[in-house]
Amino acid sequence: MDIFERIKENPGPLGQFADYGEGYFVFPKLEGPVGPRMKFQGKEVIFWSANDYLGLCNHPEVKAADAKAAEEYGMFYPMGARAMSGETPYHQQLEKELAEFVKKESAYLLNFGYQGMLSIIDALVSKNDVIVYDVDSHACIVDGVRLHMGKRFTFKHNDIESVEKNLQRATKVANETGGGILLITEGVFGMRGQQGKLKEIAALKKKYNFRMLVDDAHGFGTLGKTGAGAGEEQGCQDDIDVYFSTFAKSMAGFGAFVAGNKEVIRYLKYNMRSQIFAKSLTMPMVIGGLKRLELLRSRPEIKAKLWENVRKLQNGLREKGFNLGDTNTCVTPVFIEGTPVEATLLVKDLREEYGVFTSVVVYPVIPKGMILLRLIPTASHTDKEIDETIAAFEAIHDKLVSGYYKKQAEKLLNEKGLEFKPI
Amino acid sequence: MDIFERIKENPGPLGQFADYGEGYFVFPKLEGPVGPRMKFQGKEVIFWSANDYLGLCNHPEVKAADAKAAEEYGMFYPMGARAMSGETPYHQQLEKELAEFVKKESAYLLNFGYQGMLSIIDALVSKNDVIVYDVDSHACIVDGVRLHMGKRFTFKHNDIESVEKNLQRATKVANETGGGILLITEGVFGMRGQQGKLKEIAALKKKYNFRMLVDDAHGFGTLGKTGAGAGEEQGCQDDIDVYFSTFAKSMAGFGAFVAGNKEVIRYLKYNMRSQIFAKSLTMPMVIGGLKRLELLRSRPEIKAKLWENVRKLQNGLREKGFNLGDTNTCVTPVFIEGTPVEATLLVKDLREEYGVFTSVVVYPVIPKGMILLRLIPTASHTDKEIDETIAAFEAIHDKLVSGYYKKQAEKLLNEKGLEFKPI
Repeated sequence: MDIFERIKENPGPLGQFADYGEGYFVFPKLEGPVGPRMKFQGKEVIFWSANDYLGLCNHPEVKAADAKAAEEYGMFYPMGARAMSGETPYHQQLEKELAEFVKKESAYLLNFGYQGMLSIIDALVSKNDVIVYDVDSHACIVDGVRLHMGKRFTFKHNDIESVEKNLQRATKVANETGGGILLITEGVFGMRGQQGKLKEIAALKKKYNFRMLVDDAHGFGTLGKTGAGAGEEQGCQDDIDVYFSTFAKSMAGFGAFVAGNKEVIRYLKYNMRSQIFAKSLTMPMVIGGLKRLELLRSRPEIKAKLWENVRKLQNGLREKGFNLGDTNTCVTPVFIEGTPVEATLLVKDLREEYGVFTSVVVYPVIPKGMILLRLIPTASHTDKEIDETIAAFEAIHDKLVSGYYKKQAEKLLNEKGLEFKPI
Repeated sequence: MDIFERIKENPGPLGQFADYGEGYFVFPKLEGPVGPRMKFQGKEVIFWSANDYLGLCNHPEVKAADAKAAEEYGMFYPMGARAMSGETPYHQQLEKELAEFVKKESAYLLNFGYQGMLSIIDALVSKNDVIVYDVDSHACIVDGVRLHMGKRFTFKHNDIESVEKNLQRATKVANETGGGILLITEGVFGMRGQQGKLKEIAALKKKYNFRMLVDDAHGFGTLGKTGAGAGEEQGCQDDIDVYFSTFAKSMAGFGAFVAGNKEVIRYLKYNMRSQIFAKSLTMPMVIGGLKRLELLRSRPEIKAKLWENVRKLQNGLREKGFNLGDTNTCVTPVFIEGTPVEATLLVKDLREEYGVFTSVVVYPVIPKGMILLRLIPTASHTDKEIDETIAAFEAIHDKLVSGYYKKQAEKLLNEKGLEFKPI
């Protein structure tokens, strides 16, 4: 069958919502400067979907650094791939400071997080090696693993018994092939907010020979005494052999970095295909990155404020009886029982009647019959915004329990029939 | 074997040059504003390695647009993935204008070219489909194809007989699996400067049922009457089903876009994993992109000047007896016969004695015994810079022919033994 014919017949898991949800549930257009209050469909909403944990994207020093660097260098500089013509002292300086910040010997910038992680995995393993990774890993890890020619095993999400069982399997294979083992997990799982069990996994190094690669996108800047992430928080940073974080969260930008010992970083620098064959990270993000990192180091009060907000929001929601799962990070998931139709109506109500904008996640990311509303508190949110949000959640909770959304859903489905597609 | 142990033993194809070549042959540090004259190791060089074909990176209107957008939005905006919170009217506007520019119904921005192409391929094919692609395709195509679970065939570089043979093979497989065929090639092959034979490939659509995906990174903005690329140049733009270009060449930036009919672009928008699960293209590059595209449309004299420079450089080098292969684009490869040691000395001489900086490519990218010096002329190069460069090439050519570099190489190898590693 012609490829375009197939595409027409099957729009894909997200594409099926395009007619109904575009502009609202998918591809919503938020207006105004990024911050705790933005405009959605012409009305102000309290905004809980920016991963700008430390609120740095609006920090005057950050904005000034970004603007000045853009004025001086534009968006093209430095020219090509890092190895060809994209090397500058600023790139090297930021790498030096990032390595120090996450307590590793060496670091290397990545032009984008997604393809960076893909190529880290691709470069580290040969076909004789075995990959062992968490089944709930982010898409960039999954796609990196897909490039692997050799064996791979998934372990049950954050389940140490399953980790060990799969390390045993992997060891058996590696003994046969003569290869090594790469274990991949996350510092923080961004949907449900659980920290990866890094310390317990690292303890297995005594029994099994493996290397550990950690994607700490949500941990970098938010966890650990100095903000060095989930490894520092758990006291096992040294056991992380290859540390990765994006700049798209606490660093309020884009691009990413990888850190580890000198040898492995030098190897990655010369062997990551997405870095050898594509453009160097743009200069304004590098110079702006230096400023952001300086603030991470010198203003611990920002992280303290973030956590004050996290605690206030999470305690407030828990006190109202909400199920936040077992988050032990800033990520604040609110699990609600209900059908997709109810979820649709509830989210609309929350946005339109109560002016609260959160991301919404349904099956298959979480079990059927559940709705996940995900809130990302930042250092910029005010007490008032947190209070208003908790009050809004209380109100929709009452409506949900009383069957309000269920009745609405039945009514709509009767009226509109198949035209009404829940998301 | 432990993964880090293997890395220590085998630094990889490029990594073997790290001790000798870093900072010079690999990861050279160029200083000063991007342009035809930059500083390398403290001395001014005529610089031929920026893919800034139209010289837009220093255009005052472009620099002003980049700076203003960075000042207003910083580097973080818009927040997350396009589908989650990264949608803006500017993104939509640039897509509309790009679609018009390349004469397609619809276009979609990509947060980075490399992972964009990877995900285009990944999203378009299912395991029953067959991929047929040029063996010399860029790494981003190769890695996209590596994600494919089904059959793939390579055809000999730009060889229509081989294209047809592999379409026959692919058709046989597709008939068995019930899948379709995706043919992937490039508008311009960036190393040797040949246009992909798009028109001849497209003509095969009469005999075989396949869809055509073209990476036109070096063609966009440089080829075709309006700059719409290799398809326009060859009069077969309509036969390109999925058109891709990076912003890292004529657009003097980063990021990329994909264009095609409305249905396929809508499908890609909802199904490209690197776009669904990673950050939206940053606002300054989108607003700056609108300005660049406006200049591409409204200032045909820039492209005319580029081609004037291309002709002057290529004719000049050919007149001096240099072999430029069969380039029919701006990419200007100079093929020289010689060993890697001779190449090393020649490039050093060219840079240090004659102040001319080009990229250098050796085996395995090109056959053993050959050296490729690649020059990218831009609209910003002056007649004087072109003349000086041709004179420099003439001088090194004479030295090469007279055996100067060979004797130098023997002397060095005698003196330094294994310490001297050619690149």
